[in-house]
Order: sequence, then structure tokens, then C-alpha cells
Amino acid sequence: MISMQGLIERAARLNPQGMATRCRGREQTWESLLQRVAKLAAALRATGIEDGERVALLSLNSDRYYESVFATCWAGGCVVPLNTRWVEAENAYALNDSAPLVLLFDDSFSEQARHLQAHCPSLRAAIHMDDGATPDWATDYEETIAAQAPLAPSRRGGEAMAGIFYTGGTTGFPKGVMQSHRGLWASAIGATQQFGMQPESVYLHAAPMFHIADFAGSMGATLQGAGHIMLPSFSAEAALGAFAGDGITHTLMVPSMIKMLLAHPAASSTDISSVQRIIYGASPMPAATLERCMDLWPSVGLVQAYGQTELAPIATLLSVEDHRAGGERLRSAGRPSAVSELRIVGEDGNDCPRGESGEVVVRGPQAMLGYWNKPEQTAEALQDGWVFTGDAGFVDEHGYLFIVDRVKDMIVSGGENVYTTEVENALMTHPAVQDCAVIGIPHEEWGEAVHAIVILRPGTGAAEGDLIAHCRKQIAGYKLPKGITFREEPLPLSGAGKVLKTELRKPWWEGRGRNVN
Amino acid sequence: MISMQGLIERAARLNPQGMATRCRGREQTWESLLQRVAKLAAALRATGIEDGERVALLSLNSDRYYESVFATCWAGGCVVPLNTRWVEAENAYALNDSAPLVLLFDDSFSEQARHLQAHCPSLRAAIHMDDGATPDWATDYEETIAAQAPLAPSRRGGEAMAGIFYTGGTTGFPKGVMQSHRGLWASAIGATQQFGMQPESVYLHAAPMFHIADFAGSMGATLQGAGHIMLPSFSAEAALGAFAGDGITHTLMVPSMIKMLLAHPAASSTDISSVQRIIYGASPMPAATLERCMDLWPSVGLVQAYGQTELAPIATLLSVEDHRAGGERLRSAGRPSAVSELRIVGEDGNDCPRGESGEVVVRGPQAMLGYWNKPEQTAEALQDGWVFTGDAGFVDEHGYLFIVDRVKDMIVSGGENVYTTEVENALMTHPAVQDCAVIGIPHEEWGEAVHAIVILRPGTGAAEGDLIAHCRKQIAGYKLPKGITFREEPLPLSGAGKVLKTELRKPWWEGRGRNVN
Repeated sequence: MISMQGLIERAARLNPQGMATRCRGREQTWESLLQRVAKLAAALRATGIEDGERVALLSLNSDRYYESVFATCWAGGCVVPLNTRWVEAENAYALNDSAPLVLLFDDSFSEQARHLQAHCPSLRAAIHMDDGATPDWATDYEETIAAQAPLAPSRRGGEAMAGIFYTGGTTGFPKGVMQSHRGLWASAIGATQQFGMQPESVYLHAAPMFHIADFAGSMGATLQGAGHIMLPSFSAEAALGAFAGDGITHTLMVPSMIKMLLAHPAASSTDISSVQRIIYGASPMPAATLERCMDLWPSVGLVQAYGQTELAPIATLLSVEDHRAGGERLRSAGRPSAVSELRIVGEDGNDCPRGESGEVVVRGPQAMLGYWNKPEQTAEALQDGWVFTGDAGFVDEHGYLFIVDRVKDMIVSGGENVYTTEVENALMTHPAVQDCAVIGIPHEEWGEAVHAIVILRPGTGAAEGDLIAHCRKQIAGYKLPKGITFREEPLPLSGAGKVLKTELRKPWWEGRGRNVN
Repeated sequence: MISMQGLIERAARLNPQGMATRCRGREQTWESLLQRVAKLAAALRATGIEDGERVALLSLNSDRYYESVFATCWAGGCVVPLNTRWVEAENAYALNDSAPLVLLFDDSFSEQARHLQAHCPSLRAAIHMDDGATPDWATDYEETIAAQAPLAPSRRGGEAMAGIFYTGGTTGFPKGVMQSHRGLWASAIGATQQFGMQPESVYLHAAPMFHIADFAGSMGATLQGAGHIMLPSFSAEAALGAFAGDGITHTLMVPSMIKMLLAHPAASSTDISSVQRIIYGASPMPAATLERCMDLWPSVGLVQAYGQTELAPIATLLSVEDHRAGGERLRSAGRPSAVSELRIVGEDGNDCPRGESGEVVVRGPQAMLGYWNKPEQTAEALQDGWVFTGDAGFVDEHGYLFIVDRVKDMIVSGGENVYTTEVENALMTHPAVQDCAVIGIPHEEWGEAVHAIVILRPGTGAAEGDLIAHCRKQIAGYKLPKGITFREEPLPLSGAGKVLKTELRKPWWEGRGRNVN
């Protein structure tokens, strides 16, 4: 049976003396990593982790993050990677929803972790996984490992839940996407041909490790017993430094990161000869960035992965060969991965003829188990094994998927999903706001930026800055409106009374395609 | 849930109008293939095929062979591909062991099928799947399809049995290897990176389709919705003709086939520009053949697959890049596929240190369910999910597997396994044979040839030809001794009383490595 813990046992057999992780001057072979994971798992088990009990992680990228994910599964538990960009109220929601027994955190989130620890009654233990002083309300990561004997790996695996990944919710509340051991494995194994990794490969964790996109790259590397190098947080300088200094062969980035790399003064002088593949996804890649990347670094193979958290996350892939062939296909999201099955479904529920647009619907062993504690939303998004993505697209005669719009009312800004309802709910709690609508408008760096259209109550007044500051207490920075347009006339409504966002978006998008892939 | 029927549904969604099969002037798109399979499945269901009931196939390669395999699974049944090189008595054993309800056969095996039909009481129906006249004791394949409405696909899949593949047995009786839907899929998905197929690929079925090696190549092509072209039976001329005329991109061959191709006068003048990969395996590839192939066809990527029926069959792969790098690695069987886990186990049952030889032991989702009706042999070969291959080998510091010998007393001749016990049993039934031992000796074309050492009873006489003719009634041609050495002194025995075959083999193998991979 496929299991997360089995994956690192396999990697340790494949490549026992090879480098498993390197971060902040620390390095583990696969053999030593396995020992550390088995010991950390023993500590988690002692706290009650077993049979799918949850362990939450709130930390920047690190080797210990990687160990903690696998130690949780080794103990038979389920990992809950918290979004490092969320504000306390959002993470508190996720913790109270998923009810973990243990929270692991690093120095950057010490303060937030202390508050969460105090307000989340399910938490029995907090483990400090960083090099600073361990607070007295937590235990030290390395001491915890040193004090334990290795635990035998749990027999849990297959369709059992291995992780809950929080993503914005259409109703305004985050949804916990439940992924199985099999799902996390299947997303990666379906992409081995395009990833092209080997035991000698070195994967750079450049995107945040809590994000399921990095999970896919990470699992791909783990499948081959390849090495992992973690950037605590992304900067163009650090990433270019790793390319040149750490022999990075593979990495996964969101387009805004690639744009930052290319804009850096050292981009053209950095030695990137070890870099074989850059995988990108999670938001649309501007054509100019793609061209610039291929011009500057012709030896680097580009791979686009399209999908969503509900698909762990890979649905389709645009291969290196597809990129090199160029032309129209560069605007496509590629073809189904080796485990994906794709349909385009019309509003009548039937499959659309080839070439016609409809909702992108995907099935495969990487499909989520459902949304944690949300049976109704699960029933809507997951039907007979098919995940309804909320994206609209069509498939051309060669089987390439083109995403044309999103069915769900969502903005993708810098690789992060922003559900407009959540932003609208935050705005509406301000006493001066009578009505509002949130849309995505074009943004050079992030693909889309969050923008609000607000109607104030007669006789009140509020400045743009006031409203944004008001929202800041409730939602993460990337979800905040970056600008507000005030209007007096009512919002345009459809016959069914829904706000016509297509109308509202028009002035910003006219003359440019909103290819949201 | 992964299922064989789901695989062709997926292929039909991926590439509906693409060529699925082409054979003897017939061609099906994936959409039309799906319809035909669903109708043939309806006929099988009407005969009682469901819940793992067996359907046997006795036929040369054809598009209908491919359809029949998937129709069986579509109906919920289990396929039993019979060895076309076996004599009637051997196939009767397999049929009486697996007790199928239906037998499909072609013109080449009409006579044998009639006898089997008469002597295998489980058979309820025989379907003639060829272009000649349908015998009155069978029904016609195309008429059967035409008469049916499509059946809804069975929900069976995952770990449920999808096929029984007969292989020689150490005890002298063939063993039926039970493979699940998941196993057949997993073997292929673990190899996608090395196979490098796409929806535009065209796979040539050159090896016999009853052999699980061709199943792996075939499933690889099916995973991508690629085309299948079948050679009814192999000849160098037909294969080269297909390379040039059918745009073949991928094929799987045993080394003796590649040797025949290279030796053909048209080899150097044939247009092989479409051929991207030749996958080889199932028996050792002589170094000279490998060199000649790479010299003559430098644009063709070579991939070696090593494994056995019990692993559906892929355990390790030597990639195109490994072949191009050359050197010592060309003598290796490569590294574990993306789903394989590998151990080298010593006689004490512990893992050997890296570099030391022991038994090759493999685990993964492609491991067999066990041997049909043989719980004791299953318990021996399959322990805690690990398949004990019977091969001896070691792993080098880079993770490459080198096969050095076989633990099981088996000869691989021209890609077919010959268990020596079976040949010895046949010889011992001759009244003049007092004792005998069967060994593999070097053979330029087949890798190894079956050779017998015989001690005649005092006062009797029998010529080499008499003994071989005697065996011919009991075992397949490829298992027959190709030569016999008569001796008078007793066979050399070990302390435990076992025949010391290493001693017997020495005169033939001295000065040449018996690298049996």
C-alpha cells in the first residue's frame, strides 16, 4: 500500500548515502533523515498522534518542515500545513476546524503560535522547530528527537487521509481539502515523465512548503530519492544564489517568482548550468515572462503544471518539448498527466464537443477525499470521483487544455487563491459600506490584483486606506484590496439578481485577454 | 479506482479520434475501440463473465487480442493469456487449473482450441477471432460484437484480479501468476519517464501479446492514448517494414529479436527515423548486440526493462541516458522504476551491504497477488509484499542493479523461462533414462540453450533424437533439450544431496561470464 512514510523508506533504500535535505548549514542523508523522522514520530505518537489525528505546521520553509510532514504520517497522523501569509484569525479558524493535537512552529511565527496555542483547545503540545530560544510553553525540536527511540512506521496509507490543506472558500470561510496518502503520491507519479528527476537531482523548495504546489515538486523529488534544499523564504537573490552554489537541478515556482528572478541584475550573469527544469504553475504566466525566460536561459527546460489543491494539485502538464515547440501551445495548460482524466462539461451537465468551452472537470487517483467537515460543499465539488474545478476551458484537437476563465468567483494573485466573497464579507463589516463587489484586475507582477468596488452608505464617509486597514485585521495581506473604486449607482445585476462581475471587470480588461491560466 | 476498463475509457477521452489499433488493414479510433470492447463485453457477460471469472486467449498478436483483454475486464472478468508456444498438454493444464468459461482463439490455433474445448469442462463458449471460416463449435467474433448492445463497464478494479499469467514452475508444473488491475497499471506508470510516450506515439506489438513484457509496453501506450500496431508474429522483415511504413515510435523486443533485426540485410537501409525507443528485456542482451544496435541506429533510444511476471513485470529500468553514457552501466539492469523498491537479501535473510550479492527482492504496487491455487508457493515467493525474484545480484554505489546469476534453477532461452525440473521430468518418463540434469549453456542467438546431461539405464540404449522426440509430446519446443551429453559416472552431488549444476555447467561457461540479465 502506498504511504507517505513508505515513500521515504523507499528513498532511503534507493539512495541511502545521498543528500536528502540541506538547509541553513545542516545536511541529512536519506538514512539519517529516516532515523530522525522515526524518532520525531515517536514523540508525536506519545502525544496521541495516530489514526489520522492532526499535526499543524506554521513555519517558513526548512528541512525540519519536511521531516515534520513525514514524521506525522510515520506516526499515523495527518498534517495540516498552515498558510504563513494568513492572519491569526484565519489560522485560528483552520485550527479550530481541524482540531490538531500538536502545533509545530518556527521563530517567525512564535508570537502567533503562542496565541493560537492559548485559543485552540485541541492543542496538547507545541514544538519549536527553529534555532532561536525555545519558549517555555513549547518543547525543543532537536531535544525532542534526541530523547526518543525510533518508532516503527504506521501501517496507515492508501486512501487514508494524510493531509488537510486549507484553501479559500466560496462561502467566505476557508475549506480544508482532505488529501490521502495515495493522492499526494499519485499527483507526483503522474508527472515523472515531465519532471525528469533522478536520484542525483537536487530540488529547490522556493515556493512556500505549506502550498500543495511545492508538495508536488517535493514528492516528485522524494520518489527518486533526490536531494531537497530549502530557501526559508523566497528572494530572487537567494534563489539565484542556490542555482549557482547548490547545484540545483529542479525547482517549482509561481510566475511572479520567475518574473522577480528575471528582473534581478544578476540574472544574466548567474551560472544556471545545473538547472534542468523549472516547473511553474498556480497562476497565469505572462507571455512576455515566458519568452524572456526561454531567451535568457535556453538550456533550462520549462514545465507548466495546472491544477488545484483538490487535485493534489496536478491535472495537466505542458512539457519541455511543448515549450520548445512554441506557438499557440504556450498559451495552453498542456495535456492530462499520466493519472488524470479530463472532461469539459457544459451548463447542461453534458460533455462539450471538442473545441467548445465548459467547466474543466478532472478525475484520477489524486482527487481529494473531500472537504473536511463540509459534506455539502464536497458533494458539489466531487461527483462520482470527478473534481469540478470551477475553471472554464476547452480542449483542442491535439488534446491540449486552454483555460479561458474561472467559473468560481475567485482571483489568483501571485499564485494565491482569493475568494472574492471572503474579501466582500470583510468590507461589509465596515459600518460605512453599503454594498461592494470584489474583482481581479490585471497586474503586471501578480497576474491579477484584488480590487474593490464600493458603494458607501448615504451620509457616511470612509477613505480607501480606512477600508483596507479595517480588512487587515480579518484577512491575509494578499487578500486585501489593493485599490478601491467608489461609485454611487447600484451594482449591475443579472436577471437572477447576481452581481454582473463581467460588467464591472470590463473597463480594466478591455483589449487584453483574461487568460487566467 | 484504477481499472483496466477505466484505462481505455481514459484513452478514449484523451484521444478520441486518434488511432487506437491497426492490424491486417483494420483500423479503430479510440472511440470506436471503446464501443467494440463494450459490445464484446456484453457477449462475455451473457456467458457468465463477471466477478473475476476467467476468459482464456489462444492467438497470435492482433487488434482483436487487445480488444479481448479489455472486454474481459470491462465485463468484470479476468484474462488468461495462453502461451502460443506451449503444446496442447501444457495449455490443457493451464485451462484446467484456471477453469475459464470462455476461450477465444485464432486460425493458427483452431485445431488445438477444438481439443481444449472438448477436454476442459469449465468452457461454456469458444469465440473464433480470425478471418478464416468460423468452425461450427465456435461463434464468430465480429458477429458476436454486431449482435450486442454496449455493456456498462464493470466497477471492478484496484486490487481485484485482472489476469492470470502462466509461467514455468520450479516444481515442474506451470504456476498462474495473479495480477491485479492496479498491478498491470503500476508496472507501466512506473516506467512513463523512461518510455517517453505521448498521444502521438505508435507502439508496435512485436513480442507475443500473451507475454507480460508486451503487456507493460502495451499499458504504457494505453496510458497515453497512443496507437497500437500488431505484428501477427515476429519476423525481422515484418518489423523493419513496420518501422518504415507505419511510423512506429516505440516497440518492446526480446534481445533475440533485436539480433535478428540487426542481422537482416535491409537493417542498414531501412528508414527508422520515426523510431524513438526500443525497450528490451526478458533475457540477457549480449554486449556485441547492444553495441551494434547503438552504432547502426544512433538516433534510437534504448531502454532496458528488468523484472519478471510476478512484477507485472517491471522492477528496474536502464534509461536512454544510461545507455548513451555507456561503460560498465551497460551491463547493469538499471535502477528501480518509479514504483519499485529494491532489496538485496543474503542467505541469512538480512539485507546485504551495498556492492555485495544476494537475492533480488522487490516490492511495489505492481507485485502479484500470488500464484493461483498455490498458497505454499505464494508464501515462499511473496513475503510482506516483497517478491523474491530468484535472481542473484548486487547494487552499486549509484543504485544500479547488476544481475549475476539466478537463484532459482531456471534457464532463460530466447526470452522464455524454462524451469529445468520440467524438462527433467519429461526426460525421466523415458524408460531408458536412469538419471538426468538439465542446464543452460551459452547460445549466440537465444542467450542460453537448454542442454541435458543423461545417464542411461545399464543395458538400454537411446539416441539423442529419440529422447528429444519423446519430450516433444509433453513440453513446448523452446523447452526441449537442444543437445544431450551422455555420461556414465553419477551426477555430482552437494552435501545435502542436491545435484551440483554449477559443476555441470563449468565446461561450457568457463572463460565467459554468465551474466544472466
